[in-house]
Amino acid sequence: MRITGTFLDEISYDIPHQNWGYKEWDRDFQSMKSIGIDTVIQIRCGHNGFITYPSKVLTTKAQCFMPPTDLVEMFLGLAEKYGMKFYFGTYDSGNCWKDANFESELEINKEVVSEVWTKYGKHKAFKGWYLATEISRRRGSAVEAIAGLGRYCKEISDNLPVLISPLINGVKQNRDLGLDKGSIPLAEHEAEWDSILGSLEGAVDQLAFQDGHVELKELAGYLKINCALARKHGIECWTNCETFDRDMPIKFLPIKWEKMWNKLQIAEAAGIEKAITFEFSHFMSPNSCYPQAHGLFDRYREYAGLI
Amino acid sequence: MRITGTFLDEISYDIPHQNWGYKEWDRDFQSMKSIGIDTVIQIRCGHNGFITYPSKVLTTKAQCFMPPTDLVEMFLGLAEKYGMKFYFGTYDSGNCWKDANFESELEINKEVVSEVWTKYGKHKAFKGWYLATEISRRRGSAVEAIAGLGRYCKEISDNLPVLISPLINGVKQNRDLGLDKGSIPLAEHEAEWDSILGSLEGAVDQLAFQDGHVELKELAGYLKINCALARKHGIECWTNCETFDRDMPIKFLPIKWEKMWNKLQIAEAAGIEKAITFEFSHFMSPNSCYPQAHGLFDRYREYAGLI
Amino acid sequence: MRITGTFLDEISYDIPHQNWGYKEWDRDFQSMKSIGIDTVIQIRCGHNGFITYPSKVLTTKAQCFMPPTDLVEMFLGLAEKYGMKFYFGTYDSGNCWKDANFESELEINKEVVSEVWTKYGKHKAFKGWYLATEISRRRGSAVEAIAGLGRYCKEISDNLPVLISPLINGVKQNRDLGLDKGSIPLAEHEAEWDSILGSLEGAVDQLAFQDGHVELKELAGYLKINCALARKHGIECWTNCETFDRDMPIKFLPIKWEKMWNKLQIAEAAGIEKAITFEFSHFMSPNSCYPQAHGLFDRYREYAGLI
Repeated sequence: MRITGTFLDEISYDIPHQNWGYKEWDRDFQSMKSIGIDTVIQIRCGHNGFITYPSKVLTTKAQCFMPPTDLVEMFLGLAEKYGMKFYFGTYDSGNCWKDANFESELEINKEVVSEVWTKYGKHKAFKGWYLATEISRRRGSAVEAIAGLGRYCKEISDNLPVLISPLINGVKQNRDLGLDKGSIPLAEHEAEWDSILGSLEGAVDQLAFQDGHVELKELAGYLKINCALARKHGIECWTNCETFDRDMPIKFLPIKWEKMWNKLQIAEAAGIEKAITFEFSHFMSPNSCYPQAHGLFDRYREYAGLI
Repeated sequence: MRITGTFLDEISYDIPHQNWGYKEWDRDFQSMKSIGIDTVIQIRCGHNGFITYPSKVLTTKAQCFMPPTDLVEMFLGLAEKYGMKFYFGTYDSGNCWKDANFESELEINKEVVSEVWTKYGKHKAFKGWYLATEISRRRGSAVEAIAGLGRYCKEISDNLPVLISPLINGVKQNRDLGLDKGSIPLAEHEAEWDSILGSLEGAVDQLAFQDGHVELKELAGYLKINCALARKHGIECWTNCETFDRDMPIKFLPIKWEKMWNKLQIAEAAGIEKAITFEFSHFMSPNSCYPQAHGLFDRYREYAGLI
Repeated sequence: MRITGTFLDEISYDIPHQNWGYKEWDRDFQSMKSIGIDTVIQIRCGHNGFITYPSKVLTTKAQCFMPPTDLVEMFLGLAEKYGMKFYFGTYDSGNCWKDANFESELEINKEVVSEVWTKYGKHKAFKGWYLATEISRRRGSAVEAIAGLGRYCKEISDNLPVLISPLINGVKQNRDLGLDKGSIPLAEHEAEWDSILGSLEGAVDQLAFQDGHVELKELAGYLKINCALARKHGIECWTNCETFDRDMPIKFLPIKWEKMWNKLQIAEAAGIEKAITFEFSHFMSPNSCYPQAHGLFDRYREYAGLI
């Protein structure tokens, strides 16, 4: 199992920025290419006032700040230069979780998607959409908003693929939420996601569950279910192999290689079609500010026969 | 708006030490100089047992440890070498906040100031005093202690300038205190600081509010008030443009350049006279242990036309 | 007082991995050697499913994962190459603390020790055992399990020395446990450890208390007691001079040199026989992912006359 895709974590939610300019990003795309990454996915185009491109929609309707550079233009250019597919990540206001009403999130994102498609849709590297709303359960109107936005993206863009990356409601998510309970039972996960994916048919093409919220010993069970459900609903089953470590007091540094190694093997055995990661540039890049990532890059390349 | 001053964060309260010796500090002063920094401010001369110079006062009366090196002598020498002004930061026992009685803090600091002026006052680079007590509100006898110490510093040193760097009682301070409330209303901030600055007339010459405790969207409002109040009370209005990121789980790594860029523009628009930062050596230096700071240094130099 | 030993923190409990391979470890052993380190101590051979060697016992009886490399073999080889003594650290299930019943921990560790002695006992560098159970007080059956395992290790290995590294029940341990109380009174510490060491006679040869849980001002008192008790019970008294900083929000980065400098002087004055550290490779190595460690390495070498 190889990593062939990565998120681009600008705008970050909880990972400190590396303060890279064009030169540093160019070098990092080159490093991605060197290990076979063919897909880059912008995690979101905006969060908490900060946005990745000069958006009239977001600066006027969501009071976002006009950014100093156009990251979308830069990422599209670099993706083209290195022969990669770029997925555009939608806007996450951060405001919808309290009441789980995602109507307004859907509305503004339709305008964002229209604006973005007009502005960047002609780019050769523009190859898909990533819906930034991350859910682990059916919650309020989140699933309906994801379905609505996915369909809108596909309609406007002549059916470009739509990717989502949900969570398994695992013990580590519950711990982060202050809940002293384990991972969701397999049968409950299966029933709930069977229903959710039923709602997402025709709106979502690719499904890449985050693999870091359950204990390593539990992972195989969930991945097998995810693959079977995806097949049933006509969706490609990817894995989002997290390359940061959720088990350490520092939130977050690169993952211990042995954990990643185990997760890749489990994914392969479960029949996963493609592995992407959150994310290369901080956690497994030879250019990362975290030297532990340089080690992870080398260990991965040894494993993949690239060194 | 350019950064022309920086704190020197030895003795640190919450930022891990870089374990630099003379050679590393010399190199860092050179980097500061290269971007136009003309003022270095020792954040405090002591905290929690650790002190920056071999102080008879603090080792005998505050049970501090005799330090292995004389940082004040070193910083003064480097400031002179690079043509910078050095501000001496006073002692912070860390003990006065519970009952907000700052009498003993004032008394020992008078002795510290006398000792320091005798020991280092003849140094060409000794150009000011920084009062280490950081307040966001009028609290117990803190303001009176600041006023008393400021006057004492000026008397003993033939009127060298006195600098303070208070907090805005913003949403992020309240969050750190476990309080679920927003930033202090502008009118309340204005009334309280009008009164505080009234008490500090003749004792404080320069005012550099920390700019990181309020949301970026709120900052302009506070900075305009701060400038107007400072003018009214005959005090110079600086800004302390924080270069660490208060929004991330890792407490603390270098700030995202876009935030700093926005804060500098807001400060300029508000009429701020000088920008200093907390602080260069960890968070925006090309020599920092945090490579994210190298990126911030480069982004800042691009912005400032220095690259 | 020189540092002549270090823990090897693979498998880590709370320190993120550096993702080193053989080349990086070889370079680090060389750096250890350059400052006079003659003893390396594997902190534990397994924790929470991850283990340091392909153990039939732990993969079948404790459901541990088969590791991608044999770290014990590698560490033994490097220790031999650089003329160092290797101590093997026992297994820590992480499960015994709730009910403080260590019977099962003792049983599986006897099997681990047998397996390891058969597998690696012929290695020239295999020179001792480290018991991974860290206690600060007599608690449940922990002391009995330590005594039983220590005796078993010595019997099986023709009396190789056994090392433990307990905690002082200090203010920082209590703070980590959410308890708002200070360090254990000296007299209570003395009485309790007199009793514990009485139980450990003949089972433990070397005692290296962790030195980081009490305030620096308190340390001398505890170290003097520890030395006197060790002498009384026929045990060598070492110190485990922690090189990470327990006082900072980031848990954990390298310690401020001044603290380490003070702790070494206090240990020397107390009559400590040998100083080891937790641990060289992250916190004081010139090869560490934390550049603050490079500074600590240089400051230490200046102090030790090695530069």
